[in-house]
Amino acid sequence: MKTVLSGVQPSGKPHLGNYLGAMRQHIEMQKDYQCYLFIADLHALTTVKDPEQMRYQTYDLAVSYLALGLDPEKTVFFKQSDLPEHSELCWILGCMTKMPFLERAHAWKDAQNKGKKEVSVGLFNYPILQAADILLYQPDLVPVGADQKQHIEMTRDIATTFNNTFGEVFHIPEPHIKEDVGLIPGTDGQKMSKSYKNTIEVFAPESELKKQVMGIVTDSTPVEEAKDPDKCNIFALYKLLANKPETEKLAERYKKGGIGYGDSKKLLLEKIFEHFGEARTKYNELFPQKDLVYKILEEGAKKAKIMARKTLDEVKEKIGYKI
Amino acid sequence: MKTVLSGVQPSGKPHLGNYLGAMRQHIEMQKDYQCYLFIADLHALTTVKDPEQMRYQTYDLAVSYLALGLDPEKTVFFKQSDLPEHSELCWILGCMTKMPFLERAHAWKDAQNKGKKEVSVGLFNYPILQAADILLYQPDLVPVGADQKQHIEMTRDIATTFNNTFGEVFHIPEPHIKEDVGLIPGTDGQKMSKSYKNTIEVFAPESELKKQVMGIVTDSTPVEEAKDPDKCNIFALYKLLANKPETEKLAERYKKGGIGYGDSKKLLLEKIFEHFGEARTKYNELFPQKDLVYKILEEGAKKAKIMARKTLDEVKEKIGYKI
Repeated sequence: MKTVLSGVQPSGKPHLGNYLGAMRQHIEMQKDYQCYLFIADLHALTTVKDPEQMRYQTYDLAVSYLALGLDPEKTVFFKQSDLPEHSELCWILGCMTKMPFLERAHAWKDAQNKGKKEVSVGLFNYPILQAADILLYQPDLVPVGADQKQHIEMTRDIATTFNNTFGEVFHIPEPHIKEDVGLIPGTDGQKMSKSYKNTIEVFAPESELKKQVMGIVTDSTPVEEAKDPDKCNIFALYKLLANKPETEKLAERYKKGGIGYGDSKKLLLEKIFEHFGEARTKYNELFPQKDLVYKILEEGAKKAKIMARKTLDEVKEKIGYKI
Repeated sequence: MKTVLSGVQPSGKPHLGNYLGAMRQHIEMQKDYQCYLFIADLHALTTVKDPEQMRYQTYDLAVSYLALGLDPEKTVFFKQSDLPEHSELCWILGCMTKMPFLERAHAWKDAQNKGKKEVSVGLFNYPILQAADILLYQPDLVPVGADQKQHIEMTRDIATTFNNTFGEVFHIPEPHIKEDVGLIPGTDGQKMSKSYKNTIEVFAPESELKKQVMGIVTDSTPVEEAKDPDKCNIFALYKLLANKPETEKLAERYKKGGIGYGDSKKLLLEKIFEHFGEARTKYNELFPQKDLVYKILEEGAKKAKIMARKTLDEVKEKIGYKI
């Protein structure tokens, strides 16, 4: 069985974009792969400087994954900061990496182009920690979006440099390009993102969720007129949750006219409740059970540690740290 | 009792420059302070990429300190890479530090001025790891040379930023400017340094040590002529090891004439054997006792961990990593 490694930043309440773009695939992969999935709270510190927010978002993300079907018996699910091995390997790999190599990273170049001179050293070092995150677990595959291929390439380069310098330790991982679900529109038609405040949150209370869906921006085509489904944000989201016959049926109604945007919003809302009904119940049940959730993350960290420790021990042996 | 923290890179066989410039003071401080002293093998990885060299130099430095009188009952003596807390805090502090701040570090600017574009990320991050090294043990004082004050200032700044952001955790350390012993000349008159291959090694075998001392470069003033002690490398080294009456006596003989450089080399050699006689015997006894030396470093790591863990736990609590 091939091994797969993914990490997710605790960046706030999960929304449809998070779910459709990443979480769904992370969870589905546990059927066919040995999966490691971690909450990237060390990475989150580059942006989150509020302990309450850090704690809440980490906890909320853990509960969300479990509610959505992540099975901790199948997926090794843990919190990054529980394993010192990530930081330890990060320092070591930094010593194997030249400055100009890191200065080529997209995130750093973006930050510089935007004139963010005040970016943190943590953000600059991000790709090195990411390489450590991956290489510790010797995965075969790392799921990434097509636009994130550079990170895996950097990881592969760093691993190769280490192997060439000290002898073979790291398995060189392959990127597993995630199914392209296209742009997931937010309520304003831009890409759904917390920073645009245009999200539809998977676990928001019913009234809140309804407000978010009803707030989707549309054009002002009257009810009776024919509409182009491919130009409608409501339809775009519906399509991602509904099956093919349902999607085709709604497309027909759009093209024929006679359906208003209010109606299709209701259909989308129903579809969301249908799709996430079980998960939403589980989320509400699990959220107050802090001991249980912590226990799951602790057990995950123990399992992850077996592999992380093994790799780091080999690394230290090769470097000459074991005397 | 005030706490003092020092770290030393395992950079090869200790020479008179290392001893007089740092090691002697590290050891003397154990009388009046609670000392933590670590072998900085994580830092060494920025330059040492040979496992045999890393292992040997680390071991040799441990034996050297113990032979020179470091008492592991008084000084907490350990190997940096044995404590993951150093790397963990390094990542965290990197997230608290802006890039321009780190770009002001002397070592980095030097490397850039010398055109070393290919320096490693590890070298760039060096001041952050150094801050972590220090802050973990909450020391009152950090012994540094007058030219190394910047590192302590950077550590103080980083600690203050953390305290201001998350609440008081770190005790702000003071630099303890080491006694200025002036330039310690090597056998060629330049500053004694491994990179100039002009060292006199404290623990070299007798014949080797003799060769090094006899190789000290002098001018060609004939035996009978008067000589200026302050222009003689032999005298400069003698002065650092001999007591005042001995030093004055030799200065007299220089000024009077009639003493050849061969004679004063012999006096220096005798003085070295006298000064390091006991340490050299202990070094040779201890070197083959690997189990004992490892045990001492392991015990040191255990003691260090108590303090390091305590500080890191507080840090993680403040950040919100403890859920």
